Formats: sequence, structure tokens, C-alpha cells
Amino acid sequence: MTSEKKDLPGWLIDSKLNTFSRKMGKKAVVYGLGETVRGINKRGWTYTSFCSDEPNHFEDKRSLYGAQNFFIIDDEDTVGYFWDTPESVEFDIGFSKIDEIIVRQTSPDVDIYVIEGKNKKEIVSEFRKLTGACYIPPKWAFGYGQSRWSYINEDEVREVVSKYEELGIPIDSVYLDIDYMERFKDFTINEEAFPDFAKFVKEMLDKGIHLVPIIDAGVKVEDGYSVYEEGVKNNYFCKKEDGTDLVAAVWPGKSHFPDFLNDEVRAWFGQKYKLLLDAGIDGFWNDMNEPAIFYTEDHLREVFDEIEEFKGKNLDIHSFFKFKEVVGDIDNNSEDFKRFYHNYDGVKIRHDKVHNLFGFNMTKAAGEAFEKISPDKRILMFSRASYIGMHRYGGVWTGDNKSWWSHLLLSIQQMPALNMCGFLYSGCDIGGFGADCTEDLLLRWLESGLFNPLYRNHAADYTRRQELYSFGETVDFKNIVGLRYALIPYIYSEFMKAALNNGMFYMPLAFEYKDERVNEIEDQLLVGESIMIAPIYKQNASGRYVYLPEDMKMVRFRSAFDYDEEVLQKGDHYVDVALNEVVIFIRPGHALPIAPVSKNVSDIDYSKIEWITYRCDASSYEMYNDDGYSRIN
Amino acid sequence: MTSEKKDLPGWLIDSKLNTFSRKMGKKAVVYGLGETVRGINKRGWTYTSFCSDEPNHFEDKRSLYGAQNFFIIDDEDTVGYFWDTPESVEFDIGFSKIDEIIVRQTSPDVDIYVIEGKNKKEIVSEFRKLTGACYIPPKWAFGYGQSRWSYINEDEVREVVSKYEELGIPIDSVYLDIDYMERFKDFTINEEAFPDFAKFVKEMLDKGIHLVPIIDAGVKVEDGYSVYEEGVKNNYFCKKEDGTDLVAAVWPGKSHFPDFLNDEVRAWFGQKYKLLLDAGIDGFWNDMNEPAIFYTEDHLREVFDEIEEFKGKNLDIHSFFKFKEVVGDIDNNSEDFKRFYHNYDGVKIRHDKVHNLFGFNMTKAAGEAFEKISPDKRILMFSRASYIGMHRYGGVWTGDNKSWWSHLLLSIQQMPALNMCGFLYSGCDIGGFGADCTEDLLLRWLESGLFNPLYRNHAADYTRRQELYSFGETVDFKNIVGLRYALIPYIYSEFMKAALNNGMFYMPLAFEYKDERVNEIEDQLLVGESIMIAPIYKQNASGRYVYLPEDMKMVRFRSAFDYDEEVLQKGDHYVDVALNEVVIFIRPGHALPIAPVSKNVSDIDYSKIEWITYRCDASSYEMYNDDGYSRIN
Repeated sequence: MTSEKKDLPGWLIDSKLNTFSRKMGKKAVVYGLGETVRGINKRGWTYTSFCSDEPNHFEDKRSLYGAQNFFIIDDEDTVGYFWDTPESVEFDIGFSKIDEIIVRQTSPDVDIYVIEGKNKKEIVSEFRKLTGACYIPPKWAFGYGQSRWSYINEDEVREVVSKYEELGIPIDSVYLDIDYMERFKDFTINEEAFPDFAKFVKEMLDKGIHLVPIIDAGVKVEDGYSVYEEGVKNNYFCKKEDGTDLVAAVWPGKSHFPDFLNDEVRAWFGQKYKLLLDAGIDGFWNDMNEPAIFYTEDHLREVFDEIEEFKGKNLDIHSFFKFKEVVGDIDNNSEDFKRFYHNYDGVKIRHDKVHNLFGFNMTKAAGEAFEKISPDKRILMFSRASYIGMHRYGGVWTGDNKSWWSHLLLSIQQMPALNMCGFLYSGCDIGGFGADCTEDLLLRWLESGLFNPLYRNHAADYTRRQELYSFGETVDFKNIVGLRYALIPYIYSEFMKAALNNGMFYMPLAFEYKDERVNEIEDQLLVGESIMIAPIYKQNASGRYVYLPEDMKMVRFRSAFDYDEEVLQKGDHYVDVALNEVVIFIRPGHALPIAPVSKNVSDIDYSKIEWITYRCDASSYEMYNDDGYSRIN
Repeated sequence: MTSEKKDLPGWLIDSKLNTFSRKMGKKAVVYGLGETVRGINKRGWTYTSFCSDEPNHFEDKRSLYGAQNFFIIDDEDTVGYFWDTPESVEFDIGFSKIDEIIVRQTSPDVDIYVIEGKNKKEIVSEFRKLTGACYIPPKWAFGYGQSRWSYINEDEVREVVSKYEELGIPIDSVYLDIDYMERFKDFTINEEAFPDFAKFVKEMLDKGIHLVPIIDAGVKVEDGYSVYEEGVKNNYFCKKEDGTDLVAAVWPGKSHFPDFLNDEVRAWFGQKYKLLLDAGIDGFWNDMNEPAIFYTEDHLREVFDEIEEFKGKNLDIHSFFKFKEVVGDIDNNSEDFKRFYHNYDGVKIRHDKVHNLFGFNMTKAAGEAFEKISPDKRILMFSRASYIGMHRYGGVWTGDNKSWWSHLLLSIQQMPALNMCGFLYSGCDIGGFGADCTEDLLLRWLESGLFNPLYRNHAADYTRRQELYSFGETVDFKNIVGLRYALIPYIYSEFMKAALNNGMFYMPLAFEYKDERVNEIEDQLLVGESIMIAPIYKQNASGRYVYLPEDMKMVRFRSAFDYDEEVLQKGDHYVDVALNEVVIFIRPGHALPIAPVSKNVSDIDYSKIEWITYRCDASSYEMYNDDGYSRIN
């Protein structure tokens, strides 16, 4: 429905302010909104859906990278809503008034979908039927990935791989951050660092390692650079009001932004991935596609002029902070998003009116191209920015988190809301991207994210190294990652079933159980049909409380081949979990396959699977498997 | 001991690197370090003791406002250490190596005190005997205080007070932030806003309201301003290497810093408080005394020169962030602390060598003056910066926290470590200073901080109003603050007993109980002899787990006169706590006095106290009381 045209049952509409509001009962819970800050229950804050390059995922941030305007209100009734608009929209979930939801639209031109179903699971499934089938990655992408900004050349990558080999820690991929490119130019290779890229890709593949390069949204302005020159010649870049190409800076300095909303541009940009696919690459991550803007050329000029005003003055409380703001607010400045335009079917549209579709369409460009270039074989693709529907073309990672215990917890809480929108292939930067990681944080994060489809350790430049061999003793890391590999048959099976049946891989407990206690559980999740997790997310904790909504079998893993089983009764438990242990809980009537630990995903020996079962036998588990690379949908 | 001279038993000394290190057992817990980030157990991070104007209390921050180099290692042995140095010193508590403490000194010139005792409580008590008797505030300072940056004039203050009166919410103080001054000049009054300050102070006192003005460390450079002129004339300000007065900016713009390390300067500056005391003021908060430096005149000039270098360039990954840093790092720039000098008994000492003594000595200046100006009557004083020993002259508040749930938890965790150092009169900005508060956060914070000696709601400019009448319904706020007043006889009694006996008011459970579980409890505290608290610190939670190390009586308060009692057995419990409830736990053999709710502290009717007891009668409680204003030590 379009808000101008109809009523929205249960909501008050203020068509002057473009707001929709409704009351919430005291016990109402609101699920969804995808990748946002705070907990599983979104009550108590205002979220602004506006894809943002926001490396500071503080409690009071309103926007992160994604725009996923789908939520379920679980009140006396249970209803889902999808607020379909490419503009900024604000979801005030009990912030202004503790018992009220207020949706503040930028303009009235919004399609609102009311999604009904007999319960939350069914609402999600209905929503997913509406928005399309979920992207499916190659199976190797469920292995452990090691990343850092950046492994600077072949030898650094080789060193990482050989250290994992030496230590016997399984690994399937190494990520190439921005420095693999020649001066940060998309679809180029720094040939000093990687003199024969295709050969190196093969060398790595022969060891079972997939290299995953990053692709940025901005295209460097540089004469002689073919992507730049073709884009300029064909008017493929976003333009300023005066019709000239917008100059905005990202990593390479001055850049242009491809107009991804345009079919022709998408087809052109998508084909560029072929350069890397031809070199043997079979996975990518799309970055900086909110888009991130360090500055626009025009704004930077204004900034330098403004700075002049402060020179030689006695800067006090008022002027000093204004001066700092002039410079501090340069990057991702909201006004910059109004300085450029898209060409959509010949219509000129100002960027901020369609902002949330930019990253989506960059990833769609890749996804559409992959279908043509690689019609048989799946290609790994995940993106930082996203919008509802992008889940058909790729997954997401949750961007530049920090090595904070609170972000470990956040990463658990974000997963179900992403899954609701169809972003099943997703995960966080394990160990944290910004800030310095500690040995215990990394270990706990590997444990808490043990089931994350995207299982990648990534860290920023200038932070402490956090490869698994960086902290002295490695045996605990080896055991935990080994356990991950032993669990991949289950992870892959449950992931695929969720993907093919419009289901969720990670679910809040309240999607399955009915007692009131589960509505407030923010630190336990269901993973697939068999498992509940209850990770440790506090430093120096060697145990935690767990609520069991029914009798379950607790399995305490020290490694894939060293574990105990114990049946626990429905109710509250305090459970010891040493730093090198993981506990999971098997639901009654369910089974968990455990494979032998393998060096990488392709080596997993399904013939040697053992089963941990609870009140059933192994036959009760329906295992999905396939060759792991053929396209499915 | 001085590290050059002796061994430190159990520690390895590297005299080249100026480091001390020792191993920690797997279960060792480290308590202390005063006001720092992270939990009660300091393991797993590096803390740099260097008083810092740091409004972002993130998990990965190394320095906050205080420098409180006292900690207890609770390993196979239990020992306390006080690292006495006015310079920066780094405490790496299992960060670099998970099983090691490394103390990194700036220079070898450090006195290390080894504090022994038969348990943690006794070690604290020994340490406090060494460092002197604790500051005691007037009793009214235990009442509720309302603050905001800023109530701009008389009428705004009157409005606040009358709203509390109308609603019947008890209140004892209103704080005056920087705008009460004339252009941010210490010891002046903005006479447009407060035309007859003394009369207004009296008007408020007649209503039972104490006004508490802020005093800043920096003195505005302004001809005709007596504090400035006297300071210049007498060489009372910190000087640059060339002997001229350092020009550094804070709120008023260009300012000088009094050389608080100098006895004569302290005596001079301390006497200035008399201007306000004579107007009827009886409480102050000392701010910006790390010192905070927006910029030094010399550095700002350099910054503008550096900015020139970036003009007209194609700013890329390297240069753009460098440009941002040049401006972003202006304030509290570490190099600025090396640009000025103190005159200590005729010896010129570079500031960074004695940095951590600056705020201490500003507060000492006030405390020494108060003893002379007000020899009979106590004056409220608390400070932002601090060092060990400053607890003799005032309390502290924990600075510019944010309206974050994680900071609510942090504020609970910081209290015992502050208490260890003798900072008994302390508290956080309830509701959070920066960022926007919500109704539920404010309510939970008032509940979690119910026993904080300093019970003040404070918020920054540009944030959502958070006076207790700002969120619609006020009855819950009224009930909770009413309960606070009902508990003041207990709070004051326990505070005074701790102050007079070198004890702690807030204690970790592990200081009293021996079972292993309590070593990991980071969200429950003992308050005085009778009470354990277990606050709710998660949004949307209507209950929590509580561990009882012995049988206790749970009291569930909806208000001071509406409560239930229930005896719970030793062990784990899940306890419901609705948003408008507080639960506390009474220890066996202990009693809790409950007074009738009063309008302010002076009205508390001790003759009508009721008692909640558990396995004892009221006579088992030794109640301390006094007139609430006469000086004691």
C-alpha cells in the first residue's frame, strides 16, 4: 500500500508530518530491522534506516550499513511490516514515548506491506516469499577465513597460510583487503605485490585456499585507467546537478561513483568482475557501497574556506567546537548525499531520494553478472551496504565492529534480524575489526560465532595482530576451529534448508517457544532445528546462566573429539564454560552430526560422521548435502 | 620502595625498560585501579594511569579522569600495591600475555608500596591508614541532585525546583554548570542571569535547595579580571619553557592554568572560593582539572600551518586521515602536556612529569581553604580528576559518561574500586551525560544507583532533557527517589562508618565471601553491612539472575511504603523486577532502617524509622548519625 492512498489498520497516520504511529502493550516485543545496534528486542531506541559507513557501533547510533525496513510487532496481535522506501525513514520504537511506535517518513511516497501469518516464523516465511529466494554461496565459504587490512603481498599471504598449515588449523580462505589493488583501483592488481596474480590464485587454490578480494564502490579518477575512462565516456557515473561527473573521494582520493541504479551501468560494472574470475577468483566482498564518501571535491573546497574564518581568533566554547566540527564532519556528510544524481530510465533522481538502493544495486550488478559469467558455479559474494531484496544476490557482513566484548554480544543479537530479511549468509568480523583484541576475546568470539555461516577473522590496520597464531598458545584456537569444521555438515545442511524453504538459520527463542521468559532472552539463539546456543560474552567469565525452555542435552566440547553430554531439565541453570570450551544444547527429538575434523571444507568426510542425539536416533535428522558449488536457484 | 633500589618480591624487574612483571594464576583476580573502564576484575586490558578529559568511556580506552594506582592481586597470595608516581604509568593486566601483569613505568623514579593484610578488606584498610582519612560531605549532599549543562538563569533553576515541588519528588540540590559564570570566568557570576546571586542562593536554601556551582581549572585571560591579573602579577600560572605564561584554551577561550602544585598558589586559589561561600554556597564541583586543554596557543598556530599543506591536494587514504587527525587531535593533545612547567619549591618541573597531581592539587587548594574559611561546617566538594590521596579533600564523580545501558553497568562496577582508594563520596551522572536518555534507562539508573552517595542526574547540552518530569508519567520516578530518601539513614550511617573506619561502602562480593562463584560476579555489590544489590542493567529486561552466597531476605520495593519480603536460599535465582521495582537483599543477622519519605534530607524523621530485619531484630544494627554538617576530621 502507498501511505497516501489507504489506512494502515491499527495505526494513526499524520499525513502532514508523514508519520505513522501505534501503541505497544507493556509486554510487546519488536523484532527485526536487520543490522542495527542494541538487542534482539528493538524497543527503546530510534533507528534511522539510511545506509551509513559507521565504524562506531555505539548504543546510541541510529544507522549502520544496512537498510532493512522489516519488523514484526509481537503484541496482542503479531504482524509484520515492510516499509518499502529507498529514502531515509525513522523507526522510533518506544524512544519518544515508551509505549508507542512512530515511523517518520521522509516523504509520503512509501509502499507499506503488511505481512500476516499465524506466528512469527510464518510471517518471516511469507515476507521471504514476497522478496525472493536467498543467495547461496559455495560450500567452501563456510570454512574459516582469515582476513586483515591488509596482507600486502604474496609473501604475506603465503606466510599466513603456511602458519595455519604448520599448526594444523583448518582454513579455507584468505581475504585481500584494499592494498591488493594498484592504487586502490577496482579490478586492478598491484603487480609489484602480486606479479602473477592468476598463478598465485592457483597456487593458493592448490592448497585449498580461496583468495577473496574486496571491491569498492568508488572508481578512481585517473587518466588511462580503463574503468574510469569507459565510465566517463559512457556517462556511467553519478552526476552533479550541472551534469558533470561527481568527484568524491574514497581510498584512492578523487573518484567517481558508478550509477548502479541504471541497468546498463550494472551490466558494465558487473562484467568487470570477470577480470578477477578469469584469474581463478571465486569470491568477493563489496565494500564502501553505502556509499562511503570521505569528501566531495566541492565540499572540501568549502571546508578550507570555512577554516580560514577561524584563523587567528580566540577560539572558545562556541567557535572551537564549530571549528572541529567543520573538519570532523567532512566524511559521510549528509549534505554530500544531496550533491549528486542518478539517471533512472532517463529520469534524474537526487541521490538521497534513493540512497538505500545504492549498495544493493552494486551487489546486484555483481550477482547478475555472475549468473552470466559463471552460470554453473556459485560465486561467494557479500556486501557491507544492503537493502531488502539484496539477499537474492549476496550475503552481508556486519561491517567495522570493534574488538569489544559488547560487540561480541551485538554480533549474536544481529544475526536473527538479518536472517528474517533473508540475509542468511552473514557474519561479523570475528575478533573485532577496530581496537586491539585479546586472546580471550578472540577465543570467546570464535566460540560464540561457531555457527556463523560467514566465519571470518578480520582486523583493521594499526590494530594488534589477531591471526590465530598471534597469542602464544594455539591449541585452543585449533580445537575450536576444528570443531567448526566438524559442525559444517550440520551448519551447511541447516543453512541450505533455511535458504531453500524461506526459513531462518538463527532464530530468537521466542520464535519457537511460547513461555514468557523467552521473550526477554537476548543472549541465546536457536541454530537450525537441533541446537540452542548460549555463548559466553563477558571477559573473565568461566560460566553463565542459561534458560532451557524445555529439557535439552548439553554438550560440552573441548574439541570435536573431546566432549561430554549431560541432560538438563527445563528451567534455569548456571553452566561452567571454561575459556577453551563450548557448550551447545540439543533439543529433544533432534540429532547433531559431527564430522571428523578436516583441513578444509572439501575434505570433510561425510562417511565418518558421528551423531549426538537426544531422545531420537540419527535417522530422525534429514541431512541436506550437495556438491557445494553447483548453482541451485 | 623506589624501584631503583630494591627488589619487589615476586616480580621480575627490567630496569632498562622500567617494567615490572609477574605471572598470574588462571583464577587470579585483580581489583582496583579506581575509575577505569571494564569490570570489577581488571584482567584482560591495559590501563594507562594518566588523568584524561575523556568523554568516551569505551571498552578500549586506557585512561579516564583519575589516576588511582592501587590494586590488589588475589592469586595464591593476596597482596596490594600502590605505584606512587605522578607520571604516566601503564598497568597491563593480562593484555599482552593472558597470564601476566606488566607495569610499565615512564621513569624509574617510582615509590612502590606493598600493602599486606590477611584479606582484601584488611589490605584496603591498611592502604587507607597510609593515605589518610576520608573526606566527609555534608549530609544534604546525600539527597537527590538535579543537574544539566546548564540551567542558564534564575528562572530556569526556579522552574526545575518548582516542578519537583509540584510533583512531590524530593530534592536537595541543583547544580550550576559553566553558564552561571560571566563568560566562563571562575569566581564570577553572570549578573544578567543571576542579578542578585546571594539573594537567589538564600531563596533556594529557604526551599531546602543547595546550589552547587562548578569551578574550572583554567583562568580566562582577560584584562580587568582580578583572578587573571593577580595570577599574572604573582607568577601563579604555569609557564612555558621561555618563562611566559602558558596560553591554553578551555571554555572561555585563551586561559592560564594556576600552578596548583605550589603552596602559595593553592592558598591563593583556595581563598577565591570564599566569594561564593560568602554568597551562601556550600558545595562545589571541580572540573576540567586533568587539566583539559582544548588547544595551546602555540599548537593551534602549528595546526593552521599544517592545514595549509593539505589545501588543493588530492587527499587520499593516507593524506585525508592525516588531515582529519591534525584537527581531530588538537584537544588534550599529549604533546601539549610537555609544553608547560610547574614551579615546585623553586624547581622547574615539566608538566607531564607531575601530570597526575594537577587535579588533586586543585581540589586540595579548595579543601585546605575550606578548613580555614569554614572551620566548623562541612562543604561539599567533588572533582573530576583525581590521584591517590585526594580523597582527603573531596569525592569524585565519574565524569562524562553516556546515556548507555553499558555505562549504567560500568557505573556499578566502578564504585568498589573508587571506594578502595578512599573515594567514598562518589557517583556517576545518573541517566548519562552524553547521548539521549530514555525513560526506562533513567528509571533503571536511579534504581541501580539508589545507594550511590552522590545521587545526581546530569546531562549534556544538546541531549534530550532528563529531569524526572521529562518523560510523561512521573509516579515511578517519585517512588524511586522517595525510596532513596527513606534509605538515607542507612546510606549515611554506612557511609560514615566506612569513612571513619577506613572501610568500604560498596564492596565486591568477593571481599566478604569465599566461594569461587563470587570471584566472577560483576553485577552485584555489597552496600554497607546489611545489603546486597543486584540491579537490572539491560533494556527491556523485567528480571535477572542473582547469586546468593548465603540465605538472604529479598525485599521488593515499589516504593518506600509498598514492599514485600521473601527469604531466598543460598544459590541461584531468577528474580522478576518490573521497571518500577527495586529489589535488594538483606544479609542474615542484619537490619535495614526505612525512614518515612521526606521532602529533603534535613526533614528525615529518625523517630519514625521502621525496620526490615532478617534473623535479628533492629537492635542489632548500629546506627550512625550526627547533625550532618559539623566537621568531623
